[in-house]
This record gives sequence, C-alpha cells and structure tokens, in this order.
Amino acid sequence: MNMKSRSHPPVLVVMTQQEKHEFMPPDLEARLRALFPELVWADAPLRDDQWRELLSEQRPEIILCAWETPSLPPEAAEHLKYLCFLCGSIRSLVPRELIESGLKVTNWGSSVSNTVAECTLLLILAALRRVGNWSVAMRTKGEWKKGRHPDTLSLFGRRVGLHGLGAISCELVRLLEPFRVQISAYSPSVPDETYKTLNVRRAESLEDLFSTSDVLVELAPGKPDNYHIVGDDLINLLPENAVFVNVGRGMVVDEQALVRASRERGLHIALDVYEVEPLPVDSPLRSLDNITLLPHLGGPTPDRRRDCGKLALQNLENYVSDKPLINLIDLNTYDRAT
Amino acid sequence: MNMKSRSHPPVLVVMTQQEKHEFMPPDLEARLRALFPELVWADAPLRDDQWRELLSEQRPEIILCAWETPSLPPEAAEHLKYLCFLCGSIRSLVPRELIESGLKVTNWGSSVSNTVAECTLLLILAALRRVGNWSVAMRTKGEWKKGRHPDTLSLFGRRVGLHGLGAISCELVRLLEPFRVQISAYSPSVPDETYKTLNVRRAESLEDLFSTSDVLVELAPGKPDNYHIVGDDLINLLPENAVFVNVGRGMVVDEQALVRASRERGLHIALDVYEVEPLPVDSPLRSLDNITLLPHLGGPTPDRRRDCGKLALQNLENYVSDKPLINLIDLNTYDRAT
Repeated sequence: MNMKSRSHPPVLVVMTQQEKHEFMPPDLEARLRALFPELVWADAPLRDDQWRELLSEQRPEIILCAWETPSLPPEAAEHLKYLCFLCGSIRSLVPRELIESGLKVTNWGSSVSNTVAECTLLLILAALRRVGNWSVAMRTKGEWKKGRHPDTLSLFGRRVGLHGLGAISCELVRLLEPFRVQISAYSPSVPDETYKTLNVRRAESLEDLFSTSDVLVELAPGKPDNYHIVGDDLINLLPENAVFVNVGRGMVVDEQALVRASRERGLHIALDVYEVEPLPVDSPLRSLDNITLLPHLGGPTPDRRRDCGKLALQNLENYVSDKPLINLIDLNTYDRAT
Repeated sequence: MNMKSRSHPPVLVVMTQQEKHEFMPPDLEARLRALFPELVWADAPLRDDQWRELLSEQRPEIILCAWETPSLPPEAAEHLKYLCFLCGSIRSLVPRELIESGLKVTNWGSSVSNTVAECTLLLILAALRRVGNWSVAMRTKGEWKKGRHPDTLSLFGRRVGLHGLGAISCELVRLLEPFRVQISAYSPSVPDETYKTLNVRRAESLEDLFSTSDVLVELAPGKPDNYHIVGDDLINLLPENAVFVNVGRGMVVDEQALVRASRERGLHIALDVYEVEPLPVDSPLRSLDNITLLPHLGGPTPDRRRDCGKLALQNLENYVSDKPLINLIDLNTYDRAT
C-alpha cells in the first residue's frame, strides 16, 4: 500500500441526522472531512439491499457508523479493514467471522464511562434517600414525610462495594472521592496494582464483598459465567440498611431474588438495567415499595455523545498513521459483549 | 466564678429516646458524661408546665437539647448562659429577648452542610436525568424509554450557578469537583477571597447568574429581603435545557413562576423546599410533567446526626475552657433564620 492510498483510503460514513447531530456535531465533522476529504457520506436508516449495494459500489476500507446501520454482510471482508463504530454493542452489526478474519473494530468503549459512573452515583444517592418512593408519593399520592426521623441515609463514610473493576468503576471511584467512603471491589482478573492506585480494597470473594458493603454496586460484565451469579445467597449477606444498585448487566442478577429481598427484608434497590429489556409491564420490580427505576439511561446522555465522536476521530487518525487503536475489540471482548 | 463551678456548671440535657439514639449515640454520650459527671438528663417530650418546673428546680447554666423541647421561658435568663441546640431552627425554642440579654446559643450549623450538599448533588443529577419522571412512569405507568435519544443530560462540563455562597455551597463545590463544571455564584456579602479559594466566578448580578447557568441551585438565605426574589424575570433568563434546583428556602422562589416555566418552557425542576410546608396536597407542583420532589429531606439524614452531636460536644468543651463557640447565633443570624 503506498502513502497516497494509505492517507486517502475509501471511507464510508453512515448515520442518521440525529446520530450526526449528537455524535458528529459541526466542529467534529469538520475535523473528519479534513482527515478524509474524499469520504462518502450516506444517510441512515438504510434498507438491507441499499446497504449491500452501497458497500459493493464504494468498497470502503473504513466505515464510520452508529446505531441505525444494518448488519455487515460477510463479503465486506473483501475490502473492509476498519469499522469505527460510534456506539457500544457491535454483535448485531458485525458477524464474528469478520473479526476472526482480521477486521479491526472499535466502539465507544471508555469514552462513555464517566456518564455511566455519573448515573451510578445518581442511583446510589437516590437509593439512600428513597427518591423513587418520594417521587411516586409526592407526585401521585399527595404525601409528605411523617415526623423528623425519615428513613433516609447519607453516603458519607459508608462502605461501597463494587462488583467489577473496569473503566466505569474507575470513573466512579473518582466521583466518590469527596464522600470519604471505604471502597472494596471484587474482580479477580484485575491486578493488585490497579486496586492500589485506586485505593480500593480487594475483596477475597463475592461473599466477602456483599457482607461488608452498605452500598453494593453491580458492574460485572455480562458474560455467560456471570448469569444469575447474584442470587438469594449473596443478597442475603448484605448488611442491614444496605442498598443495591445495578448499572451493569441485567443477566448478572436474579431479579426474583431482588424482589424477595425487597419484600421480606426491606432492601432498597435502584436499577438501570434488567434481565429483559424493555422491562415487562407486569414485572414485579415495578410494584416494589422501595425502588428507583430508570429505563437503561446509564449510557452516554445525548449531550455527551460528542465524546464518542472525539474518540472515533482519534482512532481514525491513529489508523491512518499506523498507531494502535483505542478500545480495539478482540474475539474475547466480542464474546463477552451483549 | 471559681474554677470548680466553671468545670462543673449545672447542666441539663433534654431529648427523646429517638433524638438520643441519633444525636448522642453511646460513644458520644460517654464523652458528654465524662465532661459533665453531674449532668441531669430529662426525657422529652415534656409538657410546658413540666419544663418550667424542671428549669426552676435545676436552674441549669447549660442546656443541651433537640427538637422535642418546649420554648424557653424568659425567666430562664436568670440562670441560663449557654443553650447548645443539636438541631437547626431555634426561633420557636428561644425568644429573641434571651439572645438580646446575652444568652449564648449554638445550633447544628455547618455540621449539616455536607448532607445538604449531598442532597443538592442528588437533585441536580436527578433533574438532568429526569428521575422524578421516570420513577412515576416506570412504577405507575408501565413505561420504557422511546428510542435511543432520550431527553437526558449529563452534569459533566456544564455551567453551575449558585444563588448563595455559604457553608452548603462550599461543600457542594467539593462534591462537584470531579464533574469539571464551571461554577458561578451570586452572594454580594461574600469576599472575593472566598470566590478565589473555591475557584468560583463572582456573578455580577442575579441576571448574570441566571442567564449563564445550565444548572441553577437556589441556596439563598430566607431573609425577608429575599421573599420571591426569584420570579418570572429571572427564571425566564435561564438557558435552554437548564434545570432549576431549590434546596435552600421555599420563600425565596415564586412557585407560580416555576409552574409557568415548567408548563410553558419545559423547565426541569427538582425541589426539596417549598413556600408552604408540608407542601399542600393540591399544589400544582405535584402535577407538573418534569419535576423531582422531596419532602424537605436535605437536612442531616438520621445516620449523620451524630455529626451534630460531635459538634455540640466540641462546643460544650469550648464553653468550659472559655474558647470561642462554633456557629454562635447572634441577633443578625437569629433574624435571618426560619
């Protein structure tokens, strides 16, 4: 490959107007067009046949796209070398065989960790102050607190347990810093050095983590091994007055066990993710007394999606200058993704 | 006064079992009893006649008490020198004339600032992610988000405006630090030095503050000058997509103007305080679309009331050793209190 083709590879950009508005606002679009003056920009959504036709016409070496892009056909392997995906879940977009045959794929990766961590802090504080309850009681039942001793708790000085110690947990540790909490985490594959840098205690087991956490935060990856790993046994180890927050993957937690702990032990719960999404209308979670529910809003709020666009630009620049790609998805990551 | 009477002044402690449990748990009670081995402990609540009888019998130089204590009769001035109040609002407990005649009074003061700041951060994040709405929609209407572009915002990088720059604002600035926000404040009486130390911009006027704040936090004191100082004119200066949070005093804000801004401009609101408390059942605030409501829970959560007890002990130690009292309430503070 000579320098010219390297610096002017065929590039195809596919996104809806809304996706462009959020991920690639004018300043970022200008940088993108400066990098690839000859790029082809196609408006999504596209029908599957339009998509195949576009691919066979353009034969792009690089694709930059977001949610509203159809699956890649296997024959894209003939020309496509790098898929720069602006969003998270790539499994419906990219068949595994394309990664096996060497396609480079990156996604929003760590660029969204801070907004997910922000949502986590929100749900922690909301669970402690019973915001889900008060929202319903104040807005739909005309209620007010009874007396001067409400059933609320502060985060200051509490013990926080993180099940999972990836990029989101690292951002969360930063947000928790002013609250002077004691943080433990369970994530066997993470080296001691990371725990030390973050000033986080390594829990010896999930049992250790759950039994010593006033605030338990679920951030474990959604890999098959973790299916329902959090059930009655672990949940019942939580100390009195503990709160339970899940912002990771719904499949990690047995929701029926949560429902039992809420009804029988008064566990306070705050959830952004669920075993089945959208959460079924008749889910018993919706009718618990002490729960704050969000409809999987943890991921980047629309106003911060430009951070994903910036990361994508960095990766595109890295690609053309033969530097390593950030958040490159290997087969291991692919198999763990949801 | 000789040293003996100075170190063993007559001390009367009045509180309910619940108040004792929260404000003066065993470790603090032990410190209190070590300081004043001869103290008299009376269980609240007390009827007014029991209270007067107790006072005339014990003639305490120092009283330590909490909410469930009747008003002090003016004749307490004959013996009482220091009222160490474990809670906040002292106006129903202490007639102004007692302070005029030299009674020293302290309250929980700055020891509660961090939990109020915590509640403020919670309401900021809740307003940005529309938690009040989602709580009602998920729990009572079986709803889920529509599409990938929800009407939510992140706090990262936003402009935060503080109306008021007292102890709570100072704690809030600490909690906001990891969010890399740009903070402005309007509080004319606060010296430039404080703004500089906190890295907060001094807004030139309330108009300046409101027109440059994506997140407007009301923390202005509830003095008569501030009655309804925030009305249509200021609220309409808020930028598009701004959120409005009040954790200070309800009387500062014209609630009808908030209702209009919510209905006509889609302003997102989060409130912990109201013009009339308890908030009337038929308040139009309860039926707005985009609002998160708490029933005045900002003050110290029960688990942090021991911080107020610790401050009280510090003050009692200061009193017997002739050191300055922390959060001493002068006539100016008394007149501004609610």
